[in-house]
Amino acid sequence: MAIVITGVGSYIPERQVKNTGFLGHEFVNKDSSKIEDPNDVIIEKFKNITGIEERRYAEKGQVTSGMATIAAQKAIEDSGVDPEALDYIIVAQNFGDISHGSHQTDQVPSLAARVKHNLRIKSPSCVAYDVIFGCPGWLEGTIQAQAFIKAGMAKKCLIIGAEMLSRVVDPHDRDSMIFADGAGAAVLEEADREGGILNHHSASFTYSEAPYLGYSGSYHKEKAKNKIRYIKMAGRRIYNFSLTQVPRAMKQCFDASGKNIEDLKKVFIHQANEKMDEAICERFFKLYNKTVPGNIMPMNIHKLGNSSVATLPTLLDMVRKGQIEDQKLQQGDVLIFASVGAGMNINAMVYQY
Amino acid sequence: MAIVITGVGSYIPERQVKNTGFLGHEFVNKDSSKIEDPNDVIIEKFKNITGIEERRYAEKGQVTSGMATIAAQKAIEDSGVDPEALDYIIVAQNFGDISHGSHQTDQVPSLAARVKHNLRIKSPSCVAYDVIFGCPGWLEGTIQAQAFIKAGMAKKCLIIGAEMLSRVVDPHDRDSMIFADGAGAAVLEEADREGGILNHHSASFTYSEAPYLGYSGSYHKEKAKNKIRYIKMAGRRIYNFSLTQVPRAMKQCFDASGKNIEDLKKVFIHQANEKMDEAICERFFKLYNKTVPGNIMPMNIHKLGNSSVATLPTLLDMVRKGQIEDQKLQQGDVLIFASVGAGMNINAMVYQY
Repeated sequence: MAIVITGVGSYIPERQVKNTGFLGHEFVNKDSSKIEDPNDVIIEKFKNITGIEERRYAEKGQVTSGMATIAAQKAIEDSGVDPEALDYIIVAQNFGDISHGSHQTDQVPSLAARVKHNLRIKSPSCVAYDVIFGCPGWLEGTIQAQAFIKAGMAKKCLIIGAEMLSRVVDPHDRDSMIFADGAGAAVLEEADREGGILNHHSASFTYSEAPYLGYSGSYHKEKAKNKIRYIKMAGRRIYNFSLTQVPRAMKQCFDASGKNIEDLKKVFIHQANEKMDEAICERFFKLYNKTVPGNIMPMNIHKLGNSSVATLPTLLDMVRKGQIEDQKLQQGDVLIFASVGAGMNINAMVYQY
Repeated sequence: MAIVITGVGSYIPERQVKNTGFLGHEFVNKDSSKIEDPNDVIIEKFKNITGIEERRYAEKGQVTSGMATIAAQKAIEDSGVDPEALDYIIVAQNFGDISHGSHQTDQVPSLAARVKHNLRIKSPSCVAYDVIFGCPGWLEGTIQAQAFIKAGMAKKCLIIGAEMLSRVVDPHDRDSMIFADGAGAAVLEEADREGGILNHHSASFTYSEAPYLGYSGSYHKEKAKNKIRYIKMAGRRIYNFSLTQVPRAMKQCFDASGKNIEDLKKVFIHQANEKMDEAICERFFKLYNKTVPGNIMPMNIHKLGNSSVATLPTLLDMVRKGQIEDQKLQQGDVLIFASVGAGMNINAMVYQY
């Protein structure tokens, strides 16, 4: 018995926001002091590090659970699963639904309950819950679904990652330019074949790392709205932490999968920052005394930014559908997924396609 | 091999708010119209239905993850588990951390990551995540932990339910009087004995029921602060839904446990409303053509109100420690747990003590 992904879907908002869209922003440092560089220089530096040229933002009338519903519908269609046969709907998210103009997270009922409601699924035995695990939430939801299948509690699960970061960004913080909106989903099922999920690994580093990614007031002390909080990150610390811990976690996961490093065909890393992802990939192969094979790491960050829990399933969807140049998947290909984010959490999964 | 609860702990805030504390409130109907009855009559009616005489509210400086940490420490101490040996910390919550005076949910990083940070646990292999599943979240977290143990992914898990509903209540809504603050926790482990978790059942009713419990504006249109949302419930609908579906779910769960109804020693129901809980219990036994045995359902709602995900573990903790009159547990006792809440979700678990 294998546990396999039988369908994938994603929702990419239509509204493109190019880097030039930030030229009019008043960026300040963490201590609220003025940044010396003019905005075009700030933006150019940003692009050189992160690789991000543009990102997508949802429209005013949309909320996260709505994006999640569209991605879910596409994944269900792609897999051919009967929605009434689903045992679980798991939504990975971190900010709930936030209506435009509001700052309140709304997750009562859970986004998974909203998605199930929107999909018009009747079966009460389809259990709907949300998992909060930072950016690695979609992969963690997949790992949890796998556990339910292994424990005999489920046969078919839908796992969605959806986030609308445009509603939680501080316009005075350069890091805001990283964040984006989107949703991705996959159907995971028991199947009578080889391959599927070969191994997984999850870890939470909280002792010193818990505050690396959080929710705090605007950097701009004068223009800050009273008490409103925004997504904030200690970029340098996250970078160093990720470069040390993610390749190790990937190796630990891959070594226990029983596969040889020569067999590895694709590396899917959470799309957070191009330079960081490249460095993680390089260090991972270095642990095997190898250089990075050409074309092994598909990327969509240039056009889509970092949409948190949505990036991995969206990337997988695009590669499956041939939407990323020179990136194809073939039956039997060995893949590794890895993500890192708030917690700080890290996870990885080895999968035979 | 059994999966057993080896320790329980809870945190009950010190601040008591008696029903008379609401005498000065300006209560209005859902349509913002004045309520005819004077407040003392409103409060007396409320008490007669819900059984609630007083509830506990946290202090200004506290947040949900702080309460969760105290409950967790007590459960760890009670079980004697080495915190560094925990494989999972699961926090069930629905509103994240909300600082006093704010209306923003903060769950980045997750409350589980904050609790793990507060507990000074170093081991990265202790995975920390939050589950959003309405009031049944603590029981659902326990069911998930059980799956991880069954799937060979874990041996020791800490499951916490923590909520601070005093930060999300509309002062103009009579239903506000139901809600309270608190935290409860349990350690779940593999053990070489009989009993433990015998069976479980989970269900999500979202087709018509998703909007029964949610987050909306104040009932008082004139005094409402712009766009601020509060916890809101369609009380009558929830009551009817619960009376129909909860006893059925409990019977389905109990029947598959292999135990005889004569063996059942205690019924632990989410403390939401005394009359509702009594009616659920009555209907459950009626499905077996029986009347409710004396002293079978411990209650703490009179003094503690409805603290959402915290009520079940807090109640279990109080009964274990002999803090509820005429309620004791003995080795070998068969118990059933059941909860219902936002989603609308229902779950149940049969457990041999």
